[in-house]
Amino acid sequence: MFDKFHEECGIFGITGSKDAANMTYLGLYALQHRGQEATGIVSWDGKTFHQEKGVGLVSDLFNKERLGHLKGTSAIGHNRYSTTGENHLKNVQPIMVNFALGMLALAHNGNLTNAAFLRDELEAYGAIFQSTSDSEVIIHLMAQSRQKDIIGRLTEALHRVKGAYSLVILTEHGLVGARDPYGLRPLSLGRVKDAWVLASETCAFDLIDAEFIRDVEPGELVLINENGLTSYKPFPKTDPAFCVFEYVYFSRPDSRVFDHQVYEIRKNLGRQLARETAVPADIVIPVPDSGVPAALGYAEAGNLRYETGLIRNHYVGRTFIEPEQAIRHFGVKIKLNAVQDVLKGKRVVVVDDSIVRGTTSRKIIKMIRHAGAREVHLRISSPPIISPCYYGIDTPTRSELIASSHSIEEIRSYITADSLAYLSMDGMLEAVPHKTNKYCTACFSGHYPIPFTQEEVVQIGLFDPKSD
Amino acid sequence: MFDKFHEECGIFGITGSKDAANMTYLGLYALQHRGQEATGIVSWDGKTFHQEKGVGLVSDLFNKERLGHLKGTSAIGHNRYSTTGENHLKNVQPIMVNFALGMLALAHNGNLTNAAFLRDELEAYGAIFQSTSDSEVIIHLMAQSRQKDIIGRLTEALHRVKGAYSLVILTEHGLVGARDPYGLRPLSLGRVKDAWVLASETCAFDLIDAEFIRDVEPGELVLINENGLTSYKPFPKTDPAFCVFEYVYFSRPDSRVFDHQVYEIRKNLGRQLARETAVPADIVIPVPDSGVPAALGYAEAGNLRYETGLIRNHYVGRTFIEPEQAIRHFGVKIKLNAVQDVLKGKRVVVVDDSIVRGTTSRKIIKMIRHAGAREVHLRISSPPIISPCYYGIDTPTRSELIASSHSIEEIRSYITADSLAYLSMDGMLEAVPHKTNKYCTACFSGHYPIPFTQEEVVQIGLFDPKSD
Amino acid sequence: MFDKFHEECGIFGITGSKDAANMTYLGLYALQHRGQEATGIVSWDGKTFHQEKGVGLVSDLFNKERLGHLKGTSAIGHNRYSTTGENHLKNVQPIMVNFALGMLALAHNGNLTNAAFLRDELEAYGAIFQSTSDSEVIIHLMAQSRQKDIIGRLTEALHRVKGAYSLVILTEHGLVGARDPYGLRPLSLGRVKDAWVLASETCAFDLIDAEFIRDVEPGELVLINENGLTSYKPFPKTDPAFCVFEYVYFSRPDSRVFDHQVYEIRKNLGRQLARETAVPADIVIPVPDSGVPAALGYAEAGNLRYETGLIRNHYVGRTFIEPEQAIRHFGVKIKLNAVQDVLKGKRVVVVDDSIVRGTTSRKIIKMIRHAGAREVHLRISSPPIISPCYYGIDTPTRSELIASSHSIEEIRSYITADSLAYLSMDGMLEAVPHKTNKYCTACFSGHYPIPFTQEEVVQIGLFDPKSD
Amino acid sequence: MFDKFHEECGIFGITGSKDAANMTYLGLYALQHRGQEATGIVSWDGKTFHQEKGVGLVSDLFNKERLGHLKGTSAIGHNRYSTTGENHLKNVQPIMVNFALGMLALAHNGNLTNAAFLRDELEAYGAIFQSTSDSEVIIHLMAQSRQKDIIGRLTEALHRVKGAYSLVILTEHGLVGARDPYGLRPLSLGRVKDAWVLASETCAFDLIDAEFIRDVEPGELVLINENGLTSYKPFPKTDPAFCVFEYVYFSRPDSRVFDHQVYEIRKNLGRQLARETAVPADIVIPVPDSGVPAALGYAEAGNLRYETGLIRNHYVGRTFIEPEQAIRHFGVKIKLNAVQDVLKGKRVVVVDDSIVRGTTSRKIIKMIRHAGAREVHLRISSPPIISPCYYGIDTPTRSELIASSHSIEEIRSYITADSLAYLSMDGMLEAVPHKTNKYCTACFSGHYPIPFTQEEVVQIGLFDPKSD
Repeated sequence: MFDKFHEECGIFGITGSKDAANMTYLGLYALQHRGQEATGIVSWDGKTFHQEKGVGLVSDLFNKERLGHLKGTSAIGHNRYSTTGENHLKNVQPIMVNFALGMLALAHNGNLTNAAFLRDELEAYGAIFQSTSDSEVIIHLMAQSRQKDIIGRLTEALHRVKGAYSLVILTEHGLVGARDPYGLRPLSLGRVKDAWVLASETCAFDLIDAEFIRDVEPGELVLINENGLTSYKPFPKTDPAFCVFEYVYFSRPDSRVFDHQVYEIRKNLGRQLARETAVPADIVIPVPDSGVPAALGYAEAGNLRYETGLIRNHYVGRTFIEPEQAIRHFGVKIKLNAVQDVLKGKRVVVVDDSIVRGTTSRKIIKMIRHAGAREVHLRISSPPIISPCYYGIDTPTRSELIASSHSIEEIRSYITADSLAYLSMDGMLEAVPHKTNKYCTACFSGHYPIPFTQEEVVQIGLFDPKSD
Repeated sequence: MFDKFHEECGIFGITGSKDAANMTYLGLYALQHRGQEATGIVSWDGKTFHQEKGVGLVSDLFNKERLGHLKGTSAIGHNRYSTTGENHLKNVQPIMVNFALGMLALAHNGNLTNAAFLRDELEAYGAIFQSTSDSEVIIHLMAQSRQKDIIGRLTEALHRVKGAYSLVILTEHGLVGARDPYGLRPLSLGRVKDAWVLASETCAFDLIDAEFIRDVEPGELVLINENGLTSYKPFPKTDPAFCVFEYVYFSRPDSRVFDHQVYEIRKNLGRQLARETAVPADIVIPVPDSGVPAALGYAEAGNLRYETGLIRNHYVGRTFIEPEQAIRHFGVKIKLNAVQDVLKGKRVVVVDDSIVRGTTSRKIIKMIRHAGAREVHLRISSPPIISPCYYGIDTPTRSELIASSHSIEEIRSYITADSLAYLSMDGMLEAVPHKTNKYCTACFSGHYPIPFTQEEVVQIGLFDPKSD
Repeated sequence: MFDKFHEECGIFGITGSKDAANMTYLGLYALQHRGQEATGIVSWDGKTFHQEKGVGLVSDLFNKERLGHLKGTSAIGHNRYSTTGENHLKNVQPIMVNFALGMLALAHNGNLTNAAFLRDELEAYGAIFQSTSDSEVIIHLMAQSRQKDIIGRLTEALHRVKGAYSLVILTEHGLVGARDPYGLRPLSLGRVKDAWVLASETCAFDLIDAEFIRDVEPGELVLINENGLTSYKPFPKTDPAFCVFEYVYFSRPDSRVFDHQVYEIRKNLGRQLARETAVPADIVIPVPDSGVPAALGYAEAGNLRYETGLIRNHYVGRTFIEPEQAIRHFGVKIKLNAVQDVLKGKRVVVVDDSIVRGTTSRKIIKMIRHAGAREVHLRISSPPIISPCYYGIDTPTRSELIASSHSIEEIRSYITADSLAYLSMDGMLEAVPHKTNKYCTACFSGHYPIPFTQEEVVQIGLFDPKSD
Repeated sequence: MFDKFHEECGIFGITGSKDAANMTYLGLYALQHRGQEATGIVSWDGKTFHQEKGVGLVSDLFNKERLGHLKGTSAIGHNRYSTTGENHLKNVQPIMVNFALGMLALAHNGNLTNAAFLRDELEAYGAIFQSTSDSEVIIHLMAQSRQKDIIGRLTEALHRVKGAYSLVILTEHGLVGARDPYGLRPLSLGRVKDAWVLASETCAFDLIDAEFIRDVEPGELVLINENGLTSYKPFPKTDPAFCVFEYVYFSRPDSRVFDHQVYEIRKNLGRQLARETAVPADIVIPVPDSGVPAALGYAEAGNLRYETGLIRNHYVGRTFIEPEQAIRHFGVKIKLNAVQDVLKGKRVVVVDDSIVRGTTSRKIIKMIRHAGAREVHLRISSPPIISPCYYGIDTPTRSELIASSHSIEEIRSYITADSLAYLSMDGMLEAVPHKTNKYCTACFSGHYPIPFTQEEVVQIGLFDPKSD
């Protein structure tokens, strides 16, 4: 699935390492799939903070010289998805400020649903905003707090915000990690030698030889400094609402997320999909690379031959100059090519993780058919996406989600498949670990785990057919 | 004089022009001599603000594409001198923020002496600072104010700050210009067609075909919007304290500053210098380009032949790679070369505007002597600089100012001149327009026109021999 | 297999298209795997030639502006592997020159074995060389020829050179394609609308919607101009010597090379490998991406479960800053990560296409074992590489090829595998199409299909233990 | 004078210095005024040649890293004026090649008039040309020569070429300097410690602390290697034809050219101009910077007050974005501004060195008048330019030279001056050193010192009204 709609953010933090900036750089590199548009690192050397930010990939943006500027034994970093507009640099995180308790830098994965409301209130009291990011609200709430220490102020601030957040915060008083009470977004804790590490996914630990210790728990704040790690749980206990889409698509298959490795779950989704939606066929092929584990699971449970009928080009750059002469399926061809001998004359099951707008699926199916496939059956390893995410995944508005307004048969017809089937909601929840009621499935069900106030409904355009 | 110590800032603003960004770009280009390290423009298109900033020269930083982003009919811009440290971009102006009255961008020429004190106070009340610049304090004071409109809030803010400021502020409610009650730094008002223009010096008006109208007066605020220009004078009338160094060195000779053209004043300084410090000589040469008008005045009053005995290289880049083999006077040679036939066997009077550390003067005199001059007499068209400027000119600390701790004879000996003479304080004040008591001469006299509080004395390290 | 040693070059040409430069850009993009270090395009607009070249990836180097410079309806392009030294740009192809028949640009895939000899001879007669590339020799031979037309001169030139070449040549008299009499390197012919296209592999045709027509035959020259395509066969018929390594590793699996699609051949190699080297195991995993088809074939023939136990990071940049703290298997980790749940406790067969130095295999096996695998069995879908390629593949010298001096057991021990097995030479030739004697297998056998003269033996350091 | 038409090239060479590349960089920096479009350096480390080239200013293009690549104790460099077309890089010098005597790099100041003829001949014999530069012809002639050593081959080559050349050539056998028999372009010889230096102008020596020894003589070749400097004079003695325009405009005033310092000569031209063209006036101002010495001479001889009525902006970048709103005299304003107080109400004599097209003069005069001047009298310190230069100065074609087709009165009227006068030919030759018949005055007189053949007349479009 190549649509840009499923991106969110990746965060990383480390303290107690002579290599803090380099480690953060590698951590962000491992988390690149969580946000490819912009990236930044802030470090703290005991005297001052240093920052380097920019638009682009981690490995393009940072070099020896820039990393050399980032002195100190603590650092945090952030990868983000598409920052729109020309003034983008101001929205690139970590956000770095001076306030009453000294310097502070914050990186946020998630989205606050009452940010606009809080912002208005804060401005009325004299606050100045540098960015249009909802994350800046948290810092203002901390600055306005009369609590004496970082954790006191952060706790007060987080009691006021609603929505999803995993945070890493670098302060003069220690490195802080925090996760919202629902645990919507992941955040894991690790160790490498004497240093503590925080990362959105454990694949970041693997790269730097860090050992996975445990997840930061939903509603937990951790402060790490010369006194070691201290855990705070200032929120009443709630049922978690883990983002199920992390398992379906977002996380890397080699990561451990919400305490389970993703690869096997994704294969399970494929197995379940085969059980629910079997169709006579000769081969199963994935849409690479996100569809690979589910396709393997499908082939296994469906007892079908697995082939790599679509080859991915590894040198995809930013933009491509399309010739004047129209090229069929150009947008997909630049990334994929069909293997004719594999597909010719075959009844092909294509497995993908999800459909957003349907335009890409349509191009892929046409490309497969053009390569000679006799039948093309698309199988999706999750239910139809019908609602936008307000918790940090960059989905399009409701009206752009093809499944929000079209029947499966209509979608099938549009994408020109011989058949189309989705995994059922029950089937999905069967295939993932944890109990059924531990997940946020809002994008598939429209049921948002955190109740909205009237103001939020208006401000984020929820259910508003026009803005949506 | 090539030392970096005399730089300050240049500001520009325009409203009512379809070409606002391009005009600002040209205005900043004309003001480039006031700050060569970093530059930025913010525009307002009636809906949103756009900004482009960076480190480098105006003509290197802006291109058609970047200017194209800066939509709208109002814009402000800023050139600044050396921003230190790696985190420099955050200190590049204009500063752009959101606050209760909408978006706002501010560009500041000058320096506030009570900024550190106000900052501490603001942080105690919950303010977050993005930069280490004193200019941000003004915005916070505006945000904290309970006045209903921009002018009300700005007035309240400016009543709290002390020091030097010429400001251009872009708001959703109009373009604002302001000058501190002492009028320390210049700010002029002009018109081009239907648009109003504000600029540090009138050379910016010349380039864009704008007509000079008048100076913004000391202590005056002007608001320019669809209702035209409104003038506010919220401060009690004070005696002005125009920076005399603008005449001595800083402003461009083709500019009108404090209502008088600089070139003729600078020639006058040279004439007075000749009257006070005549010496038998064959020729008078300037240190180009800043010393040219004074040298012409000196030659005229001293009835001596004027020659251009030093040729300036026009292609000076950022940094130069010096060969391993030491080159004599390298730092100066890269910018100047002596004309042997002009100097050989001559008694040469060299005219420069000032001496900061003395190192450059020493190299220049050695170069002139190496070219064959028989005698070298250095004449300075201002008094010795003995005190740092706290009002926006980037002078070195007191201890680096050679005249703060050395006699004229000691300086002469160090720079290896046959004779050295400065213009007297009385002579300087004789040669400039306005009455004697209308100037700030702090750098020459140590008398600062605005009384310091005890806190400021501590915070800015005033008179502190250690930090100085 | 991530070692850099298997790279060669990719070439592309088109004539008769308004979109010639853009098409060439896309063609080179599809051929990026054949050379990632440098790239260039030359176009011809009927009046003059235009060129754009540089070091870097196709999608990084070319943008709308640069492609816009490349006017005309004919163009050729080239991707090349590592150009060493600082003066690299002069070796980037296409080479563009003026000579007696006008302008000419040439792109070469392959390597001439008598280039040094010819170069000495040409210089003795007054030739000037701009590059150190052997391809320039061909142009000089054309320039020295007394034949009247391009084909005549090229034929004369090619009769003098020895070695491997597929060429695209842009001239004022038409586009030329040529292939050496042994057909060592591939070159295919296609059509898109009214235009003719030449490319190293057919994946380039797929991207631009071109139709594959046929291969340029071994020893064939084609001239394409306003008179259409004319074929010349100036060489006596020889047995072909197709590079078998194109099937083993080099070509893209979705390409048709030497008239057969690569994917299925590669699976066949895997099947044959399973038949020859079966071992009790739980799962089969590929070294992605090159090992995927062979691993699928192995799993199929060996009746084993196929898994993707190694995940490839898609954002690999140029260079990585390794922290001071050593990270285990860093070089491989930056590209691959192991999926613990897949590997833990398993007996794992790892399938790769070849081993060059062995260092990468060693790191991969250690990573798999660290993830918990019980046994690791490495299976290679080709015979041991024992000899360097002198026909255009950038292999290391003999002494760096681990199999040239170590037994399989020694290699196994070095890479720390529980077992190691290669495909046999007979097995490989069984698994590929065409008859056994139609291939060059020099890298596996040391038998070079074109006899070397004594001079070549000396000049290319053949069999010389010192230079090797 | 800001028109681009008077540019030519600058060359530099050094041997015997550990700092060869850095010295060459500084030498080219000092010669930047001779060519601002492109620059290159080639060094020789005893084993191989290294090169760095590019489009841009010396100080922009070279940095520590690039200079670090240029190893060795010998180096040559070249600055060139506008290289047209997209394929520009191939024309940037030094040209570097391999030929029978090893590696060679050549930098050329001047222009050959029979290059096209020789090129055709060379191509007929099998030569390949990489550039469109006439300088490449010299190298081909050397490569074709059967002489045994560099000097023998160069001598043979130079006997075949016609036109102007000062050359520095880096070979494996030593550094070579050469000057055509007429000595049209300058080339000086210097020493710095144990190293020998060659440069177009002595200002390059001043910067690197080198001592001027003597000029390379017209028709002289010097070879400098481990045997020291050897001089060759293979040409019959001819009367020199020094380019008088080097004195009028091209060289830097602080340089010694054709064995005389330029500044004083230029002042002399101004004195002579005053004597010939006196007019009642209040002040004399130069067009900066090239007009300064002549204006000083004019003021002295005319007993008039000298003022700097035009201020030059030192931050001129490459291109300027002109606002939609037309700005009067924009092209000139970006570089110059008038000083109103100096000019207001005055009768002004403006001194410039030459007029090419007249468009710039027209703008300058309008600007001066707009600043309030009562009368504007333009005085030119050389005769009218009526013919193009074929010896290396980049003048426009005849038809663009305003004086080739308009009377002085017509020019005066076009540029809107109150009066216009040029220095007479006799006056100019009076004011310069050497005897009258030692100069090339072709641009002023149309008399070219080297007779043209019929072929050259055709090939360079001489006297052809169409191409001109």
